[in-house]
Amino acid sequence: MKTIIVFAHPNLESSVVNKAWLTSLPKDNENLTVHDLYKTYEGKEIDVEAEHQLLEQYDRIIFQFPLYWYSSPYLLKKWMDEVFTYGWCYGSNGDKLKGKELGVVVSTGGPQEAYRAGGFNHYTLSELLRPFQATANLVGATYLPVYAYQGALSWTEENFRENAVNYVEYILR
Amino acid sequence: MKTIIVFAHPNLESSVVNKAWLTSLPKDNENLTVHDLYKTYEGKEIDVEAEHQLLEQYDRIIFQFPLYWYSSPYLLKKWMDEVFTYGWCYGSNGDKLKGKELGVVVSTGGPQEAYRAGGFNHYTLSELLRPFQATANLVGATYLPVYAYQGALSWTEENFRENAVNYVEYILR
Repeated sequence: MKTIIVFAHPNLESSVVNKAWLTSLPKDNENLTVHDLYKTYEGKEIDVEAEHQLLEQYDRIIFQFPLYWYSSPYLLKKWMDEVFTYGWCYGSNGDKLKGKELGVVVSTGGPQEAYRAGGFNHYTLSELLRPFQATANLVGATYLPVYAYQGALSWTEENFRENAVNYVEYILR
Repeated sequence: MKTIIVFAHPNLESSVVNKAWLTSLPKDNENLTVHDLYKTYEGKEIDVEAEHQLLEQYDRIIFQFPLYWYSSPYLLKKWMDEVFTYGWCYGSNGDKLKGKELGVVVSTGGPQEAYRAGGFNHYTLSELLRPFQATANLVGATYLPVYAYQGALSWTEENFRENAVNYVEYILR
């Protein structure tokens, strides 16, 4: 099982959760690639053909990002708008993501209890991330349960430690 | 009541619904502005200060776009990521969108019956657009019901005509 993390963070330097997550991954795992979109493509043209060839080598695609306005930072959306082309992953003969697994790993500033009916944000993360679920459905991929760290604004290394262990397991399982 | 349409379409030339919608708007209405993001900012830096000054003049902000991967085309998300700053529309003293109305006008290729439980896309438009609803909530704006034209792939001028009349009413009411 080969996994690629398609990673989108506009400001990794000031990140706490995403930086710690990436640091906790094993360094030399042939079956795991981290593809940093902001590092690769911020302010540049996206090489659609290269992205197609890259993605086709993997069985599991994980979108990892901090939640920005209840969705991904824009560059992941730009990448999807341009890379997920008709005839490649949907439409006539567009089957290149069919049968793969697609997962979302996300950090939120607010705590989990804010993301529920009656909570500050009214909806759960699963509900807010339905566009990704519907995308998986359209391309024929299996949508994995969302993996999250919620409460980045009150992050401490101690309360993060167990989450990081589970993160690595989620990515590599 | 002053309304601004924040419009995001990567390829207006090949548009049917969005082009027809915009054409159906009155030409000289002092209280209505169409702000075309792709025309203004594609491949350019977003002028955050200018966008703040612009938005502050309006009572109602309408995001209009064709649905791309169950969300907006990327440039509207980029605009939100950069223009909706801490201290301006959220966080400490960030009240500049508070009390305004925020609406979404969207066209979809697939028909309405595909957007429901048991339908091809499993979820309604209202459900898929929750990130916009949650954004309105966070900035203290009133979220308007979504206005849509669904079935752009089988568009005919005849079945669009009534929708266009209702669109103008939605925008100007």
